[in-house]
Amino acid sequence: MTEFLGPGEPSPYLYDLVREYPSRAGKGVRPALLLATCQAFGRPSDEALGAAVALEMLHNAFLIHDDVEDQSALRRGNPTLHELHGIGLAVNAGDSLAHLAMQPLVGDRALSTRLKERLVAELLMVVRQTTEGQALDLGWRRDSVVDLDPAAYLTMAGKKTCWYSTVAPLRMGAIIGSSGTAQLHALSRFGFFLGVAFQIRDDLLDLKGGSGSGKEPFGDLREGKPTLMLIHLLATAAGDDRRWLVDYLHAAPSGSSSEGACRVHDLMVRYGSLTYARDFAAAMEVEAHRAFGKAFSTVGDSEHLGFLRGMIPYMLARQS
Amino acid sequence: MTEFLGPGEPSPYLYDLVREYPSRAGKGVRPALLLATCQAFGRPSDEALGAAVALEMLHNAFLIHDDVEDQSALRRGNPTLHELHGIGLAVNAGDSLAHLAMQPLVGDRALSTRLKERLVAELLMVVRQTTEGQALDLGWRRDSVVDLDPAAYLTMAGKKTCWYSTVAPLRMGAIIGSSGTAQLHALSRFGFFLGVAFQIRDDLLDLKGGSGSGKEPFGDLREGKPTLMLIHLLATAAGDDRRWLVDYLHAAPSGSSSEGACRVHDLMVRYGSLTYARDFAAAMEVEAHRAFGKAFSTVGDSEHLGFLRGMIPYMLARQS
Repeated sequence: MTEFLGPGEPSPYLYDLVREYPSRAGKGVRPALLLATCQAFGRPSDEALGAAVALEMLHNAFLIHDDVEDQSALRRGNPTLHELHGIGLAVNAGDSLAHLAMQPLVGDRALSTRLKERLVAELLMVVRQTTEGQALDLGWRRDSVVDLDPAAYLTMAGKKTCWYSTVAPLRMGAIIGSSGTAQLHALSRFGFFLGVAFQIRDDLLDLKGGSGSGKEPFGDLREGKPTLMLIHLLATAAGDDRRWLVDYLHAAPSGSSSEGACRVHDLMVRYGSLTYARDFAAAMEVEAHRAFGKAFSTVGDSEHLGFLRGMIPYMLARQS
Repeated sequence: MTEFLGPGEPSPYLYDLVREYPSRAGKGVRPALLLATCQAFGRPSDEALGAAVALEMLHNAFLIHDDVEDQSALRRGNPTLHELHGIGLAVNAGDSLAHLAMQPLVGDRALSTRLKERLVAELLMVVRQTTEGQALDLGWRRDSVVDLDPAAYLTMAGKKTCWYSTVAPLRMGAIIGSSGTAQLHALSRFGFFLGVAFQIRDDLLDLKGGSGSGKEPFGDLREGKPTLMLIHLLATAAGDDRRWLVDYLHAAPSGSSSEGACRVHDLMVRYGSLTYARDFAAAMEVEAHRAFGKAFSTVGDSEHLGFLRGMIPYMLARQS
């Protein structure tokens, strides 16, 4: 990735910004999934390196714009890019990085033109799905939509999180590893269950706060983010509790306070929203294990398949 | 373009926004240049239609983010997208449109895979150049850089305006029209002179204000935009005039007022900055005419070539 984010001018107004998030330590879950899937389907990982780098760069570009759109203050334990450089330069750096992300793929010499065409189409689909999911998330918050159900949540999370975090890495890895012959539907299904479970755990983790997450404590509650816990709470809280909650969400994020966020959290504990979300994520994890078998039914056992199987507990048990 | 921006969900939070700017009347200068160049090089315009649509969509995506980055209030006579829907949804819609813009090109059946690869590389180069130019523009403003010279201005305008407005339409049209055999350097040169002259005239037009431009009166002066006139004024204004101007720019855009903008304008008149910029644009126009001959020296005369020649006075004399 460093190679594609190498020196360039203007450095202080653009490429230093473009390199900022990639230089902060991340877990690299997406490239790991992509490379291992390629290997599980029988091709060496270096053939998938361009695609893996492209997806990781696109991920970092999303983070820059997400932080602007969510008005987040912290990312990976440090101030967000727009906090450091202003909204204008941050948005521009995100645009730059999103398009630089295509470079490792379109310039890849390890892949045939036919495979590259398919992979570019996958990357464009990732952006389409992610922007649709982000639009739902932002739109619901802006309009303080308070009558969402779990199905709506799954649609949003599927688009906003699963496509670029799990579905696309699996699909792109399989396309390369199988030279375009793999059936992708079962892989998408596995990716969806894994991604949803991952997102719910991530949202639960945000409620624990602490310095481990690298974000503000209770950031999601202050932003009024439509998590599964919040959707559950809105559906189950009664009387004054629900009235107060609706008012709180109408005022968020500008009018939200730490006290308000704490009260939402207390309500979530009291109404069983956290337990509900934990159970929901556990059910998704069971489905992910089931879907895993089908997704990789055509490939033989290997250390790479073992690694992928191990990604399920790794991604869902993580503490930061 | 309408076909690629057709119905889709979520409509109120994404695709309605994506369609907003394209639905406002524009002049279509970029696709006109691209299609006519293709025809001048000998291929029918329908072969270049996908590329022309892609570039026009990318242009509209840039406008969305530009307006956020410049904190502009009006675009084509109506409120900007972020004024209508907030910064978050507007940034997200720009991301969506920028990637949808690749679709008419990568899905184009009129072009060979080899030509498509070259055209995708051209589009990615457009984004690279445009984000670099935008970074200079924004960075100079943020840091109130007051010692710029015309060479710095040409670098910035070349990247920010010329690449996507003139250089890329000419290059992409020629690539398609010549099936990849055209020499592109002379076309880039012509595009650069045409684009710079166009940008300077556009900046001069902004100072005339009025409802014709579809933007706020004196918007550039209030934003502290580094135009050729401002760079000239900073280099020539003396004593109290320059001290006041520097203070004004340090306060812009948040601290700028109509009175302040009027005073900058008066100074520009008094120090000959407007005349300087008009002369500069006229010189660029002369160079554009000269470069035009070389750029199209290998193609025979045709109505399309005549149309392209006519684009020089058309683009540079426009009143809105």
